[in-house]
Amino acid sequence: MTTSLVNNPTADNQTIIKPNYPRNCWWVATTSEKVGREPLALKMLDMSVVLYRKEDGSVAALDDRCPHRWAPLSSGKLVGDDIQCGYHGFTFNPEGECVRIPSQPQIPSRCRVRSYPVVDQPPFVWVWMGDPEKIVEGPPVEAQWPADPNYSSWSGETLAEGNYMLLKENVLDLTHFGYVHATSFKILDWVGAPTVMVTEDRVSFRQEFIGCNLPPMFAEVTAIGTEKKVNRYNYGSYVSPALNVAALDIEDHEAEAGKRKNFQFRVIHVTTPETPTRFRYMWFGGFDIPDMDPETLQMCKTLTEIGFAEDKAIIEALHRNIMEDPRHLDYPEIIVQTDQAAIQARRKLMAQIEKEKNG
Amino acid sequence: MTTSLVNNPTADNQTIIKPNYPRNCWWVATTSEKVGREPLALKMLDMSVVLYRKEDGSVAALDDRCPHRWAPLSSGKLVGDDIQCGYHGFTFNPEGECVRIPSQPQIPSRCRVRSYPVVDQPPFVWVWMGDPEKIVEGPPVEAQWPADPNYSSWSGETLAEGNYMLLKENVLDLTHFGYVHATSFKILDWVGAPTVMVTEDRVSFRQEFIGCNLPPMFAEVTAIGTEKKVNRYNYGSYVSPALNVAALDIEDHEAEAGKRKNFQFRVIHVTTPETPTRFRYMWFGGFDIPDMDPETLQMCKTLTEIGFAEDKAIIEALHRNIMEDPRHLDYPEIIVQTDQAAIQARRKLMAQIEKEKNG
Amino acid sequence: MTTSLVNNPTADNQTIIKPNYPRNCWWVATTSEKVGREPLALKMLDMSVVLYRKEDGSVAALDDRCPHRWAPLSSGKLVGDDIQCGYHGFTFNPEGECVRIPSQPQIPSRCRVRSYPVVDQPPFVWVWMGDPEKIVEGPPVEAQWPADPNYSSWSGETLAEGNYMLLKENVLDLTHFGYVHATSFKILDWVGAPTVMVTEDRVSFRQEFIGCNLPPMFAEVTAIGTEKKVNRYNYGSYVSPALNVAALDIEDHEAEAGKRKNFQFRVIHVTTPETPTRFRYMWFGGFDIPDMDPETLQMCKTLTEIGFAEDKAIIEALHRNIMEDPRHLDYPEIIVQTDQAAIQARRKLMAQIEKEKNG
Repeated sequence: MTTSLVNNPTADNQTIIKPNYPRNCWWVATTSEKVGREPLALKMLDMSVVLYRKEDGSVAALDDRCPHRWAPLSSGKLVGDDIQCGYHGFTFNPEGECVRIPSQPQIPSRCRVRSYPVVDQPPFVWVWMGDPEKIVEGPPVEAQWPADPNYSSWSGETLAEGNYMLLKENVLDLTHFGYVHATSFKILDWVGAPTVMVTEDRVSFRQEFIGCNLPPMFAEVTAIGTEKKVNRYNYGSYVSPALNVAALDIEDHEAEAGKRKNFQFRVIHVTTPETPTRFRYMWFGGFDIPDMDPETLQMCKTLTEIGFAEDKAIIEALHRNIMEDPRHLDYPEIIVQTDQAAIQARRKLMAQIEKEKNG
Repeated sequence: MTTSLVNNPTADNQTIIKPNYPRNCWWVATTSEKVGREPLALKMLDMSVVLYRKEDGSVAALDDRCPHRWAPLSSGKLVGDDIQCGYHGFTFNPEGECVRIPSQPQIPSRCRVRSYPVVDQPPFVWVWMGDPEKIVEGPPVEAQWPADPNYSSWSGETLAEGNYMLLKENVLDLTHFGYVHATSFKILDWVGAPTVMVTEDRVSFRQEFIGCNLPPMFAEVTAIGTEKKVNRYNYGSYVSPALNVAALDIEDHEAEAGKRKNFQFRVIHVTTPETPTRFRYMWFGGFDIPDMDPETLQMCKTLTEIGFAEDKAIIEALHRNIMEDPRHLDYPEIIVQTDQAAIQARRKLMAQIEKEKNG
Repeated sequence: MTTSLVNNPTADNQTIIKPNYPRNCWWVATTSEKVGREPLALKMLDMSVVLYRKEDGSVAALDDRCPHRWAPLSSGKLVGDDIQCGYHGFTFNPEGECVRIPSQPQIPSRCRVRSYPVVDQPPFVWVWMGDPEKIVEGPPVEAQWPADPNYSSWSGETLAEGNYMLLKENVLDLTHFGYVHATSFKILDWVGAPTVMVTEDRVSFRQEFIGCNLPPMFAEVTAIGTEKKVNRYNYGSYVSPALNVAALDIEDHEAEAGKRKNFQFRVIHVTTPETPTRFRYMWFGGFDIPDMDPETLQMCKTLTEIGFAEDKAIIEALHRNIMEDPRHLDYPEIIVQTDQAAIQARRKLMAQIEKEKNG
């Protein structure tokens, strides 16, 4: 069913479901802390990849398929900086070259696997799965703040049955707060369309709430409470197919002496497609408050988990509608003002895919 | 696999598996009591439909897919007579027109969903999913008796993995009693082929058992017992693709003074295909006895559940044979006398589908 | 996905996944002890087969699909030597001829199912599912030793999600011992390629270990222990698409007076494909020691179950790599010396399939 959908790229809305991940792009494999001295098998962009940390602490990423009998290399174990297949012991170095065949001294020159460029930029490990000659310098830098001690952060990961762009579009139109998250985040005053800015490398939105009340989580973390009028500045960006970021600045003009007047809340939305119909969603939330107390941090984490599970549920329901309805993508798609950021992001993505196709 | 089966309509027996549900037909969505003030999501004829009861008690049925981001409307909630999508709050009236977009005052004229004609005719809610211009007056009236206080009835619903016609053919050849239901219904004397009558709008069968004993359930409900010789008149009909009915009249010529001489047992078999390979089976059984005592009623319900689960099991096994056997539908199909009613029903169905195709 | 793989038989390595089971071949249905007076439904070579034991103890095998309404005959029961369908009671004799239609005296001549030749040669029941005119005499005789009282044996069966040839190739290259079974069988000295012999009807390998220690299971069963130097002669064969066998002879030149100098260990690997992507793996292990004590026997069985589950896991992982990797079979396949037996077996299999295709 997927196949028939993806081979009919006539409608603009196809972007939300057809194989829509450029390969010439830095994608997040996982969080840095999950890569260690045990082979880690992951699925990314339809491929099986094995990651592990070398003895010097850097990360290797290889095609997870031995060229001998095609077993996953991740079925084996590390030998120094190399990985030994769990079937017959063929061993490969971090560059993907076979360095040992236990049963014979000769190693055929074709005996190698693909090695992927990796950047370990905490909290994420990024992998380049595209054309090595098209590699661009470093992954986006916007996702590094959780490693900054001036921030307290929390995070989570979930596997969603749907196309990853559905999540990216979801976080670019926050008028869903009042419906999807009415009883969790309780941000009920986000009604109108935000200002949208498109630059060469990103799509951003901004919405200001002047003289407003704070939703419960922010009220509690800042100790401002839900009654006092403050200003909220919400903004966010589609940074790349792999990354969306968002932030919420709080401004309390009438802060008492000795109390903070400004707070910043930040969110990272990382999406890594496993297939056109499934993606891993990795997220971080955090405040520019060092050493938040564990109980408050846990409250933030729990609430974020609830809220992002609500997003996942609606996105999966929408995806099922696309897949199971015999009309699939041949269905009206009403675009309104609040969709501007999502539509612009789609266009950027399609342009990137087109460019990749045309070499 | 389904696809290849259904695109090769050469054999007569294809009817039992190819997409074999005319859309210009009244189909049962569910039982009346299940439709209330919470949106009810159902799958019918491959489509997702949402049903709800308006404030005046009548029932609305809409395409369960918002034209904005394609989320199910059933993810949301009712607002008066309207339904509000759970994603961004787009709101639709029972006619399918968008009446509110929370983020802006303008409503694009294309912003609407399909609304389906509904008839709430207890115990069932019927929906017309075909061409609105071809709509025919009212659904069949034969399924209304459970609402009649002169009857005591019981009911059930099950989801079966198979084509719905397998069940309809099953209830048109009751020689399976002695095998499928040998230890449940214990009707062991139904051996020969019934008389079959075909009229313009239905296929009926009739079988008479003169001077016979009653099977246990009937013996107990009527208090006639299993020893006394009585007459049983069994008959039933293929009424429409959605509905089969059956009845069993009992005649006790030697009833004692003051005791009933005649009893009628009735059954409704409603089948609603969700896909070509799955259907919901909704059934009612009942006697023309007002206020049957709850224990006897429960006995009847339990026995019927056991028996109809036996039908489901054999039908699903047969369906698996069709799907998994590489010969699929290219297999001999021996027709015998007892198949007459089923074969005639198939022909009616095929004629109806052909007619619909040709406009 | 399977389909696209199997219709592109360009690469030599296609053998490991395309529909690669000749039908003109004796295949194992199950073990003799599992066939009795209850119909036994099995899937073999994509077909549904029902087996049962006749009153004289011989075994009948029929197509498990009634030609009336296509229900499985196995849904019914035995009546003497015949089987009665569980739907409407149509009854077939062991030759597949319909001998009774309960609802009418006439039996259409076309009303029959296919009957398969069977050989019950304990411990296995073998079935011929190919062209009856091409039938060859008897199944291989190499799998009969478990019925010999001079042997003590143990056995098991598992269902594996993968192509059956992956298992057959696995047991023809035992250099996987040191990796897949490093902590179970602990046979760590099998490093180099064995001698391979190809004759008209089989592919065999032989490896000798002179003056070696015994792995734990053999050390315990023979009471030789793990310290004493003995000789091990390992050999095995691809006998047919259905059967591989292996053996390990132990020679203890310095056996004390009155103690056995020679022991033989034997293994049977039977593989029966249910589909191109799933097979049943039935195995026996045994020693030429009559009446081994139950505890030692149980130790052998447990260890074999652990080891063969390790084989199953690596084979299923490899199979997933083939299926899920978009490159499927278009991936380098490095052949080394230890693959000789497997490659020769593949060629025999391909030749057999080609011959069958060309009549």
